Amino acid sequence: MEGDGTQDLKHCDRDDVSHLALDIGGSLIKMVYFSSSSGCSSDDQINGYLKDGFDVSSGTSNHRVLRRKLHFLKFETSKISECIKFISSKHLQYGDQDDKDLDSDKNIVKATGGGAFKFADLFKEKLGIILDKVDEMSCLVAGANFLLKAVNREAFTYMESQKDFVQIDHKDLYPYLLVNVGSGVSMIKVNGDNDFERVSGTSVGGGTFWGLGRLLTKCKSFDELLELSHQGNNRVIDMLVGDIYGGTDYSKVGLTSTTIASSFGKAISENKELDDYRPEDVARSLLRMISNNIGQIAYLNALRFGLKRIFFGGFFIRGHAYTMDTISVAVNFWSKGEAKALFLRHEGFLGALGAFMNYEKNGFTDIGHQFMQQPSANKSSTHSDVQDNGCIECRVEVRD
Amino acid sequence: MEGDGTQDLKHCDRDDVSHLALDIGGSLIKMVYFSSSSGCSSDDQINGYLKDGFDVSSGTSNHRVLRRKLHFLKFETSKISECIKFISSKHLQYGDQDDKDLDSDKNIVKATGGGAFKFADLFKEKLGIILDKVDEMSCLVAGANFLLKAVNREAFTYMESQKDFVQIDHKDLYPYLLVNVGSGVSMIKVNGDNDFERVSGTSVGGGTFWGLGRLLTKCKSFDELLELSHQGNNRVIDMLVGDIYGGTDYSKVGLTSTTIASSFGKAISENKELDDYRPEDVARSLLRMISNNIGQIAYLNALRFGLKRIFFGGFFIRGHAYTMDTISVAVNFWSKGEAKALFLRHEGFLGALGAFMNYEKNGFTDIGHQFMQQPSANKSSTHSDVQDNGCIECRVEVRD
Repeated sequence: MEGDGTQDLKHCDRDDVSHLALDIGGSLIKMVYFSSSSGCSSDDQINGYLKDGFDVSSGTSNHRVLRRKLHFLKFETSKISECIKFISSKHLQYGDQDDKDLDSDKNIVKATGGGAFKFADLFKEKLGIILDKVDEMSCLVAGANFLLKAVNREAFTYMESQKDFVQIDHKDLYPYLLVNVGSGVSMIKVNGDNDFERVSGTSVGGGTFWGLGRLLTKCKSFDELLELSHQGNNRVIDMLVGDIYGGTDYSKVGLTSTTIASSFGKAISENKELDDYRPEDVARSLLRMISNNIGQIAYLNALRFGLKRIFFGGFFIRGHAYTMDTISVAVNFWSKGEAKALFLRHEGFLGALGAFMNYEKNGFTDIGHQFMQQPSANKSSTHSDVQDNGCIECRVEVRD
Repeated sequence: MEGDGTQDLKHCDRDDVSHLALDIGGSLIKMVYFSSSSGCSSDDQINGYLKDGFDVSSGTSNHRVLRRKLHFLKFETSKISECIKFISSKHLQYGDQDDKDLDSDKNIVKATGGGAFKFADLFKEKLGIILDKVDEMSCLVAGANFLLKAVNREAFTYMESQKDFVQIDHKDLYPYLLVNVGSGVSMIKVNGDNDFERVSGTSVGGGTFWGLGRLLTKCKSFDELLELSHQGNNRVIDMLVGDIYGGTDYSKVGLTSTTIASSFGKAISENKELDDYRPEDVARSLLRMISNNIGQIAYLNALRFGLKRIFFGGFFIRGHAYTMDTISVAVNFWSKGEAKALFLRHEGFLGALGAFMNYEKNGFTDIGHQFMQQPSANKSSTHSDVQDNGCIECRVEVRD
C-alpha cells in the first residue's frame, strides 16, 4: 500500500488532467480523475499512480473523437500530505482549462467519506480547494450501479479459486445488497438508481484486520499482511469442531470436524505466547474470522430483505483470492447453498467513482451516461470490457 | 477461573454425593452433582467447589423430608486431570449407594459437550466411568427450559448497570432464541420442551476473547482479562465515526460520532506498537467487538424467525456487567429498541444441568419436576428463589 501515488511524480506531466474526485476514508484516500491523454495513453506513463483506468476513445473519420481516461489511485489517510503533494504536482486543483463544458468554479472538488468533513480546512489551506461534500452512501451506490450497468465482466463469483463472471441483466439488477468493506463495513439495500437504505453494518472490517494484524504480527503493510495470510494455516490457532469433539463431526447440527468452533480458541493454551505462533498462521486466522463474519452478517441481511444478490466491495477485498473464497464459503454455508457472494473488479473505488459521477449533476460531460448507454443502431454504440491489466476500456462511437 | 474445584479437597468428606453430570467444552468443564447434605448444609462446607447450589429441603412433622443440594463447579478443560482428581476424591463415580431410586449401573455418567467424545477413554481408564453422551444442544435447551420454568428471578435485563428481573409466563415462553456463548457461540430456536433447532452461531465467542486477549495482553486468566476490560477505554484503539468525520455524527444514516466504525481501527497507526497500548484498553476494545458482534448476529436471527425474546447464556457472560451491557446495547441498537437481551443468573451451567436432567429419563428421582411444579393446594407447594449468595433455594413441601 505504501508508495502508491507518491513515487515518480515526474511522469504524466504531459497529461491534461481534470475533475478530481476523492473518497477520504478512515484508512485510505481513494482518488479518481480524468486525463486527456492523447500523448499519454499507456499505463506506464502513470506508473506508480494508476490502479485501474477507463479508457474512453474512438477516432475514425466519421466518428466524433472522445479520448479520455479515468484514473484510480489510493493513498493512506495517515499520509494525506502525500495526497496533497500529488494533487499539487499535477495541478488537479485547477481543473481542465480547455474544457468548455466544465464547471466554472475550478476550485470545487467533489469529495465523500468522513475525511471530506475532517480534512476540509486542510484542503482549503494547502490547495485552495473547496471540498463539495457528497453523501458517502449515495456515492457507494452510484459507483456500484455505474459499474454493474456499464462494464462487462465487472461482477464475478469466486469459489475454490474459480472466478466466474456473471452477466447482470440491467432490468433485473434491483434490489440487491451492497456490502462495502472499508475500515468498517456498511450494508446497503439498493432499490434503484437513487433509491437505497443503509440497513446494517459491522465494525469488524478492514480496519480490524489491519489494526489487529499489525498488533499481532508486526507487519508493515496491509498487503504484506494479506500475503502472509496466504501462507498460513488457521488450524494452528483456531479451535475446530474436531478439536472439541476428538476429531469427529458434530453431524447432528451440520458441523463438520473442520468447522471453526472458536476463532483464536486454541490461543487460550497456557503453553504458548504470541511469539510462539507463526505470523502467517495468525494472519490467516484473522482473515478467516473477519471474512466469515462479514459473509454471515451480509447473508442474514440479504435474507431479511429477500435480496438474492449480494455484492461485496471496498478495499478490504482488493481481489485477494483467499478473502473472496472465505466470504463465498460463508455465504454458501449460512445460506445452505441458496445465496452466492458476488465481487466487483473495481471494488475499491465505488465511493470515489460515485463522487466523480456527481459532477454530472452539475452539468459535467455525460461520460458516465456514455458508459451506461445501451447500443443504439446508427446513433452510438457502447462497449466496455475489462482488460488483462485490470483497465476497463470503453469505446464510445458516436456517429454524427 | 484457576483453582476452582481443585483446592481444599478435604472439605465435604461427610457428604453423600451422587449423580454426576458433565459438560466438557473446548475451554471449560462444567460439573453438576447432588449431595445429601444433612450434616453439610452450609455453603462454607464446600468452599472452593461450589458455584451455586439448589437446596431442596423440607422437614416438619407432617411433611415428607427431601433434603438435597445441587452443586455447580467448573474446571479448565486443559486441566482435566484436576477434574478427574476431584471426582475420585469425592467418589462421585460410584453414585449414591443408599438411594434406592437410582440407576442400577453406578458407573454411567451423563456427559455432554465435545469432550464427552474426546475424553471418553480417559474417563474410562482413570475412573472406570462410562460417559453416557447426551446431545449438546438438547442439554442446553433442557437446562434453559428448566431454569426459566422452575426458578424465580432467574431471567433479567441489564441496561446501564440496571438489572431488572423478568417474570416469564410459562404459557408464553416459546418460541425463544437461546444464545449460548461458550468458546464458540450456538444460537438455538427453542419451540417447546424438546423441540428446537440450532439455527445459527458464530466462531467469534468466548474462546476468541480469551485467546486473542491472552496474545494481546499477556493476561493469565479469563477473569483477569474481564477485570482489565472494565478499567479500559476502547476509544483509544477503536476508530469511531467521529474519528473519520472530524468529530461530527454521520446522522443521515443514524451513526453518532461515538459509534464504533472500525474495531481496532486506530491500531493501524504506524506510530504505535502493541506495547504502546494499555492492556486495559485492548481488553475493552476486544470485549466490545465480540459482545457487539454476538448481539448483532443474535438479533438478526431473532428477527429472521420472529422471536421476541433472546436469552444469552454460557460462561463468556458470567454475570460481567460490561459484557451484558454491551450485548444489551447491541440488541437495542440493531433492533431500534424493539428487542431486549435477557440474561440468566445460572448462565454457565445450561449444558451440565441439561445432562443432569437426562437422568430423569432413566427413572431417576423427579427432582427437576419438583422444581417445575406449580403450587397445588393441600398437595405440595414449590417456591424457588435466588438468594444473595447466588444459590437457588427451592423448598418442596410435599404433604402426605
